[in-house]
Amino acid sequence: MPTHIRHRRSDCPIARSLDVLGDKWTLLIIREALSGTTRFMDFSRALPKLARTIPSARLQRLVDIGVIETIPVSPTSLYHECVLTEMGHQLFPVVTALRQWGNDYLFEPSEPRQCLVDRRTETPIASTQVHSADGQVVLPEDTELVMR
Amino acid sequence: MPTHIRHRRSDCPIARSLDVLGDKWTLLIIREALSGTTRFMDFSRALPKLARTIPSARLQRLVDIGVIETIPVSPTSLYHECVLTEMGHQLFPVVTALRQWGNDYLFEPSEPRQCLVDRRTETPIASTQVHSADGQVVLPEDTELVMR
Repeated sequence: MPTHIRHRRSDCPIARSLDVLGDKWTLLIIREALSGTTRFMDFSRALPKLARTIPSARLQRLVDIGVIETIPVSPTSLYHECVLTEMGHQLFPVVTALRQWGNDYLFEPSEPRQCLVDRRTETPIASTQVHSADGQVVLPEDTELVMR
Repeated sequence: MPTHIRHRRSDCPIARSLDVLGDKWTLLIIREALSGTTRFMDFSRALPKLARTIPSARLQRLVDIGVIETIPVSPTSLYHECVLTEMGHQLFPVVTALRQWGNDYLFEPSEPRQCLVDRRTETPIASTQVHSADGQVVLPEDTELVMR
């Protein structure tokens, strides 16, 4: 964890994640980065009009947190692109689970919707589920919280 | 989808989910409901002091959306409890993925942390991952978005 970030000291990792990911636009920027967007202009274009002044501050915040890093496009270039760090890549399950829930519950049956498919097979990816260490599907009532 | 809810008409299911789940407190209320909280007072107690006036409006919003329903404690009781609907239960992967990401990246190594374990075995549940229909782990670059 970058030491210059001061998260609110909740002992709940969900609260800490939400402190960091904060508002809707932050997660939509991460959605874009996960789909391969690297240029600042492209992040701006991908957000609704109202939010187009927002990406600059949000991207800087994600760099500060350690989710995105900026790297020169080439060794001699002044231009930088924004790419996800490992920490950023690991948000893929969060974003995918949100996508699937939205598709399942927030679209009318007749509405066309975006579907994430496996490039190899063109089949939709599986529903995100929670699994035990031995691979069984786990429901909330099968779990408990312990301090470790 | 309850027809009285007007989501912003984004064609992105992530944006729609974030419209509905909105702010941090909403997801923390869902966290509580997933861990078995049903009484209004217990939702209030589980949130940080500053947020204790918030649950009433948030719970009502979650009822309107269809994530939580209120049911009488007994057939003759005036008291109601708040329980997750199927739509609400299906947020378990979202909340679990946020929990794991927070635990992995937002705690100092020396900090004790909450760990979600399988009740049967007391072992931590597996890291949430994205899988293809045939059970392979899928990374962002293995996927593409199509309209269906």
